[in-house]
Amino acid sequence: MRVEIIAVGTELLLGEIANTDAQDVSAGLAELGFSTLYHTVVGDNPDRLRSVLACALERADILITTGGLGPTYDDLTKEICAEAFGLPLELHQPSLDRIVARFAAMERPMTPNNEKQAWLPRGCTVFPNDWGTAPGCAIERGGKYLLMLPGPPRECRPMFRHCAMPYLAALSGSAIHSDWIRLFGIGESAMEDRLRPLMESSVNPSLAPYAKEGECLVRVTSRAASDAEAAAQNAPYVRAVCDLLSDFVYGVNVSSLEQVAVARLRETGRTLACAESCTGGLLAKRITDVPGASAVFLGSAVTYANSAKTRLLGVSPDTLAAHGAVSAETASEMAAGARSLYGSDYALATTGIAGPASDNTAKPVGLVYIALATPDGVTVREHHFTGDRARIRHAAASNALDMLRRALI
Amino acid sequence: MRVEIIAVGTELLLGEIANTDAQDVSAGLAELGFSTLYHTVVGDNPDRLRSVLACALERADILITTGGLGPTYDDLTKEICAEAFGLPLELHQPSLDRIVARFAAMERPMTPNNEKQAWLPRGCTVFPNDWGTAPGCAIERGGKYLLMLPGPPRECRPMFRHCAMPYLAALSGSAIHSDWIRLFGIGESAMEDRLRPLMESSVNPSLAPYAKEGECLVRVTSRAASDAEAAAQNAPYVRAVCDLLSDFVYGVNVSSLEQVAVARLRETGRTLACAESCTGGLLAKRITDVPGASAVFLGSAVTYANSAKTRLLGVSPDTLAAHGAVSAETASEMAAGARSLYGSDYALATTGIAGPASDNTAKPVGLVYIALATPDGVTVREHHFTGDRARIRHAAASNALDMLRRALI
Repeated sequence: MRVEIIAVGTELLLGEIANTDAQDVSAGLAELGFSTLYHTVVGDNPDRLRSVLACALERADILITTGGLGPTYDDLTKEICAEAFGLPLELHQPSLDRIVARFAAMERPMTPNNEKQAWLPRGCTVFPNDWGTAPGCAIERGGKYLLMLPGPPRECRPMFRHCAMPYLAALSGSAIHSDWIRLFGIGESAMEDRLRPLMESSVNPSLAPYAKEGECLVRVTSRAASDAEAAAQNAPYVRAVCDLLSDFVYGVNVSSLEQVAVARLRETGRTLACAESCTGGLLAKRITDVPGASAVFLGSAVTYANSAKTRLLGVSPDTLAAHGAVSAETASEMAAGARSLYGSDYALATTGIAGPASDNTAKPVGLVYIALATPDGVTVREHHFTGDRARIRHAAASNALDMLRRALI
Repeated sequence: MRVEIIAVGTELLLGEIANTDAQDVSAGLAELGFSTLYHTVVGDNPDRLRSVLACALERADILITTGGLGPTYDDLTKEICAEAFGLPLELHQPSLDRIVARFAAMERPMTPNNEKQAWLPRGCTVFPNDWGTAPGCAIERGGKYLLMLPGPPRECRPMFRHCAMPYLAALSGSAIHSDWIRLFGIGESAMEDRLRPLMESSVNPSLAPYAKEGECLVRVTSRAASDAEAAAQNAPYVRAVCDLLSDFVYGVNVSSLEQVAVARLRETGRTLACAESCTGGLLAKRITDVPGASAVFLGSAVTYANSAKTRLLGVSPDTLAAHGAVSAETASEMAAGARSLYGSDYALATTGIAGPASDNTAKPVGLVYIALATPDGVTVREHHFTGDRARIRHAAASNALDMLRRALI
């Protein structure tokens, strides 16, 4: 079925925020096998919203709106959409009860305009809002479907996943199950080359490759009568993808390299410290983005100045003089120094030139050394990254995490 | 004049990326005083793009497309747009020369399909691409304007700023100058309250307030015959805004708190070190995001474990036992310890509970202590932040940077 996503909100037209709701909803629709043909953004303006809806009803079977469900006078999505489908709004008591309870729980007074959010189109399917106040809903007429979701991404995303996706899957008479296989260290085209025979021979599940921030991922999506059946249908394909790309797979249904690295440390009961020059705290930041990292992560010595490399980590001034701060020798001494400074089992060190300028030596921007100290000794790798400062730093941190993860297998 | 932004690219409809081009272009149009009425996203499909263009020509005066200018067969924006305006494509030799030179500079072979990018609509205004290969362009017919920009954000954003904005300003027969005033430590509604009289009494320049990631900013935009005149017209209003909000303004036309903090350190010839617990490297990461930070930033001791706080920073085990890691006393000893460990003039320390869980004490998630050690002693502040882990960590780092900045005034 053809889908159009309509975002309602003047803040989008002023460039105050990006339309991430359309991205989130589109990604979910792709998993379900629906074709999103258009995104439209319109302001909080009744006439223009009416004409956008009329146009969308011509060219799509399913309309999904985001935004405009709130309590204020310029929140008018529900009113205009119900009118387009010829439905009156009615007070939906369970939704009102939820809103009242939510305000009570937050110990904030509920102003009368909040009741507006509980008025919903007659006969709609209600999507309860566990993440905010305004409920969403779905209406149908003459084979056309219209789903309304709230605008704030932290409400839109979970309501779409938990309420709208099952509703849409039911429309297509089936359940959907997706698994995500995450890879590091392989490029997008090399990944696609290896996967092509499997991708071409498989329709259900479908296999979709993605590339993002220096990593790759593969989505495997099955459609079946129940979620359990769809999951079972996925399983052999997930195994096949993992076998084909075994050198690069770091996890199935995990969220990041740092999450996997922290989990491996916890499983093996090992601790980690870091010594960072070019990543300047980014490596520690990514590790401590993971809740619970404190169980295994002792800390990181960010040593930007050479004096700090010597004072904190015991890097020899002779090494710095002979090889420079950006060298395999310095990286190696940094890792060993961090391991002994923090008393950790493992230590990662980074030193390199993130740019935009070089360090007054002949060394090129993008040259990065990454060292890993373990109870058995120190290993160093030389890398040449491309891109701007942010990209080089991100690549350095990702490669450090991957080096640790591999050592923990 | 009414504007519609049309993004062309199937990757947007699959949810692989968000439409940040539309956000960037919309923000610039708001500065210019143009009204963006619609955003549309359509895939790489000739018939659907044709119908989207036809619809946009009905409801807008200026169409701005992003994407679809590249070398491959599915890049068809230029072909379809030129057709809609009844213009043939012609080889634009200066653009071809640029593309050839670019490939030569990158030492990469230029495949024949790249020539396609140098074919432009007859009589168009060319926007040279200094950030990639595909040039943009503008065409006009019967009072309707169509501007085409490349899709990759790192090309779209600068081409819009440097080529399209001056073209659009000229359409309105005037030059535009914007100044940005950045504030920290005041909420959006308090800022608007103070600014309202000035905002309401001023039409040219216009004043627009924004809130983003815990900070506020005010845009002051003048329209005049030349950029110099517009800038002069802005100046007294910029001063007035700074006077009204003097407690909170940290810079005019600067990019971030970290940029200002690093600049102040450079101006005063002082050095900085950090000691981070709850920010876990984020504070150092933000400081080292600023190119040239190495001149003043010595490093950061990320001490997640209590043992590391003692080993690296000399925090007394008695202090940790009596007051806990999240306390004013520990923050204070961390800052003093970092200052002496790195031998820096200033040192910032953070310790707090970023969540999602508390630290097995009665202390609430969001409680953060920030300490600043200077040659004159140590100051500590207690904060109570709300939101999730990422937001609490970001707020802690921002407040630390602001504390340093104020101390350096």
